[in-house]
Amino acid sequence: MRVLGVDPGLTRCGLGVVESRPGRQVALVAFGAATSPPDDPVDRRLLAIADAIGLWIDRHQPDAIAIERVFAQRNAYTVSGTMQVSGVAMVEAARRGVEVALHTPTEVKAAVTGNGDAPKEQIARMVARLLGLAAPPRPADAADALALAICHAWRPSTLSPTGQAATAAQKAWVEAARAARRHRKTWVAA
Amino acid sequence: MRVLGVDPGLTRCGLGVVESRPGRQVALVAFGAATSPPDDPVDRRLLAIADAIGLWIDRHQPDAIAIERVFAQRNAYTVSGTMQVSGVAMVEAARRGVEVALHTPTEVKAAVTGNGDAPKEQIARMVARLLGLAAPPRPADAADALALAICHAWRPSTLSPTGQAATAAQKAWVEAARAARRHRKTWVAA
Repeated sequence: MRVLGVDPGLTRCGLGVVESRPGRQVALVAFGAATSPPDDPVDRRLLAIADAIGLWIDRHQPDAIAIERVFAQRNAYTVSGTMQVSGVAMVEAARRGVEVALHTPTEVKAAVTGNGDAPKEQIARMVARLLGLAAPPRPADAADALALAICHAWRPSTLSPTGQAATAAQKAWVEAARAARRHRKTWVAA
Repeated sequence: MRVLGVDPGLTRCGLGVVESRPGRQVALVAFGAATSPPDDPVDRRLLAIADAIGLWIDRHQPDAIAIERVFAQRNAYTVSGTMQVSGVAMVEAARRGVEVALHTPTEVKAAVTGNGDAPKEQIARMVARLLGLAAPPRPADAADALALAICHAWRPSTLSPTGQAATAAQKAWVEAARAARRHRKTWVAA
């Protein structure tokens, strides 16, 4: 299974593609970042990011796109751009009939390191180790995008038909996913 | 000048097109709403709204698109969909080279009624009166979209090269626009 991870951002949007292989193996396909000039009007910046994501989908033909789930509680100004990019990424995927999944930062951290509170540097180091890279991928957004792609490729439902989590990392993942669902329900009820 | 107003929403996105004429006249071109089924995955819902907006742009060939500026402070769950739709609308406009403008609800209310705190029903009644309609446009989102389009068509810079506000409504508009800019700066500094 080939997954494109997208770490949404307006100035720099991390992109990373991995291919999952039997036995919990993942191989690197590509990583990078789509950027847009901060001084451009927002509509043109969003278009630049949308076109880059579309190009990555066309070039790498992923089976699924994993996007970081953005929460509105953080800094309002930053969040609006991030949230708009996540929407734009979803449209690029939907237009091409590619499956979309959203994962919270906690889910991603748990999936990759077994610890939902792992610091950013640990994620990047783990991504490098899993993909056989000599150093953590740069920019940091690309490492985050690769972690998202790995998280999705390893999500428990693809590993076991019963949804049973075998490893510590998978157990942490299942917990984080459950917590995210609870959180979402609170929102809907609000 | 022809303006497409967009009141962003995932379940129902209000759309309204007006044509401004000399002497503060506005004429109705079209109004309606793009909808998406609440049970569909978000990516497909966003695509449905994006395609509808693209169709409206292609059909009505507006000179500009006026979108409601969404603030992140409100209900987090609703805001994320609204914000994503606004981003998606911007991309549809940018892809076609159509100018994009964002207006706050306060600006729109001030432009249409002269009162930045006017209730929703008053806006809808005023929109009907300005466009020569027998009754307020339905759904309410379409009335909001038409108000956005009128607000943009009437923005002071298109009325006077010096940016001087002539009427009470225009003065209120200028004040609301200034307040919105101040608000935005606070965000950037945060």
